[in-house]
Amino acid sequence: MHLGVIGLGRMGRIVVDRVLADGHDVVAFDLDDEAVASAAEAGATPADSIAELVGALPERKRVWLMVPAGEAVDAALSDLDGLLDGDDVVVDAGNSHFERSIDRGETLEAAYLDCGTSGGPAGAELGFSLMIGGPAAAYEAMVPVFDAVATGPEGHAHMGPQGAGHYVKMVHNGVEYALMQAYGEGFELLTEGRYDLDAESIARTWNNGAVIRSWLLELCEEAFREEGNDLGDVDDHVAGGSTGAWTVREALEQEVAVPIIYEALGERFDSRVEDGKFSRRLANRLRYGFGRHEVRRRD
Amino acid sequence: MHLGVIGLGRMGRIVVDRVLADGHDVVAFDLDDEAVASAAEAGATPADSIAELVGALPERKRVWLMVPAGEAVDAALSDLDGLLDGDDVVVDAGNSHFERSIDRGETLEAAYLDCGTSGGPAGAELGFSLMIGGPAAAYEAMVPVFDAVATGPEGHAHMGPQGAGHYVKMVHNGVEYALMQAYGEGFELLTEGRYDLDAESIARTWNNGAVIRSWLLELCEEAFREEGNDLGDVDDHVAGGSTGAWTVREALEQEVAVPIIYEALGERFDSRVEDGKFSRRLANRLRYGFGRHEVRRRD
Repeated sequence: MHLGVIGLGRMGRIVVDRVLADGHDVVAFDLDDEAVASAAEAGATPADSIAELVGALPERKRVWLMVPAGEAVDAALSDLDGLLDGDDVVVDAGNSHFERSIDRGETLEAAYLDCGTSGGPAGAELGFSLMIGGPAAAYEAMVPVFDAVATGPEGHAHMGPQGAGHYVKMVHNGVEYALMQAYGEGFELLTEGRYDLDAESIARTWNNGAVIRSWLLELCEEAFREEGNDLGDVDDHVAGGSTGAWTVREALEQEVAVPIIYEALGERFDSRVEDGKFSRRLANRLRYGFGRHEVRRRD
Repeated sequence: MHLGVIGLGRMGRIVVDRVLADGHDVVAFDLDDEAVASAAEAGATPADSIAELVGALPERKRVWLMVPAGEAVDAALSDLDGLLDGDDVVVDAGNSHFERSIDRGETLEAAYLDCGTSGGPAGAELGFSLMIGGPAAAYEAMVPVFDAVATGPEGHAHMGPQGAGHYVKMVHNGVEYALMQAYGEGFELLTEGRYDLDAESIARTWNNGAVIRSWLLELCEEAFREEGNDLGDVDDHVAGGSTGAWTVREALEQEVAVPIIYEALGERFDSRVEDGKFSRRLANRLRYGFGRHEVRRRD
């Protein structure tokens, strides 16, 4: 197959390399000329623009978007508009909101596949997990590419109609927040608890045969090994949160309780409060109000 | 090495088989004669009593307790008392509370190792994850047996002094509750949400390359495959909870917040309310009180 890849960042470049390694042809474009040159060295045909990329593809064009969710997707789709027809397929493999993917699928002339991608840079060797929504025929047409980008045939599936891929990926991320919080609470209790314990040794022992073994726990083990059991100078500020917030909003709309996903999301919000959390400051002052307990004050 | 194994249930029998397979000798005892006969067929020397088991072991006796936490441990230790001396080692590989293990270590003449065991029946082939507390010399003396029972040298570690093994296992279980709740919330939203999705296919796709892949997620995949995507006639009553409650109590004592472990534990308590949850019944009635909203009543 001949695949056009738009977006050659960390993830897009992995897509290029895996598709090339599987014996397919790739035309590659990015706003960054150096990324295009590097992909060309790896064996892709370079393109100077989206129009040139489309022009270099044979009939039944297949285009993979690996650009940040939001404006970058719309900009790429705007450039693609008018250059593609109903026999063509576009894959949005970023973290778009599923409702935006439904809108885009309705607007675009080509078949549109919304594709949740999980695995991070480790996917370079192993391959990604791909959750795909949109027209079933378009999914079938893309299976050889999905086989190459994913861990194999088991690493991708057609989840349902337009939006279902990004919907499943959204929930995946909500679950991810809660899993991170679960390990976080456990290691915090072990570290602050009554024994002087070796977090790395615990993580390694758990990763070998325990019920709670997982890839995230392997990443905990790696973190303790590389940063030390006290995590050295790693700050307690946690970035991100948009897909977790989408999960909670969707759960509210569906009236499904997701208390620990919500709690894990709230921990991220709290972690980013720079100047003292207002509710804690108020609690501090209220204890003076009703009990004349001393108010600890800032310098 | 020559190991005495007391308790030949599902887990104890796995210990016997793995230790025998690794070339060691085993003397086996259980209150159930059939379990003893079965272990003897597998190659263990049968014992009719704990005293006979101890008598069959050479000097520097090593005894593995694989009996339910609580009275069964105390009963076995009571039988062992007076038969062992300071050169001997007893391993309690069940889910005892760490404070009980500290007490028992102080009382017993022999060296006492508290050993958290994770992996369940799947450990028969793979081996267990073993978290061990107690005297370091006793741990070192038992390493050949731990190598055999665990997944290998990476699957066990000396966590710290008396109680540290069961302490780490207690927290392991608290984390396990939260991980189960995380996957549960995700699959509930996916199942009750706006798409008609295939839970088994999602779990399989996630298990191949996704950030949230884990052994528990493999067990989710197995559950959907064996029970169906709607889990068939599986009830929503969740048993267990003692180790999770211990984790939360210890976290209260250490003043460490473990909100999602607590939430996951509370879900279990709630799942066992048989006759309508009182707080929900009160909320139902209060909405009438302040707003004259209709009270739904039981038949």
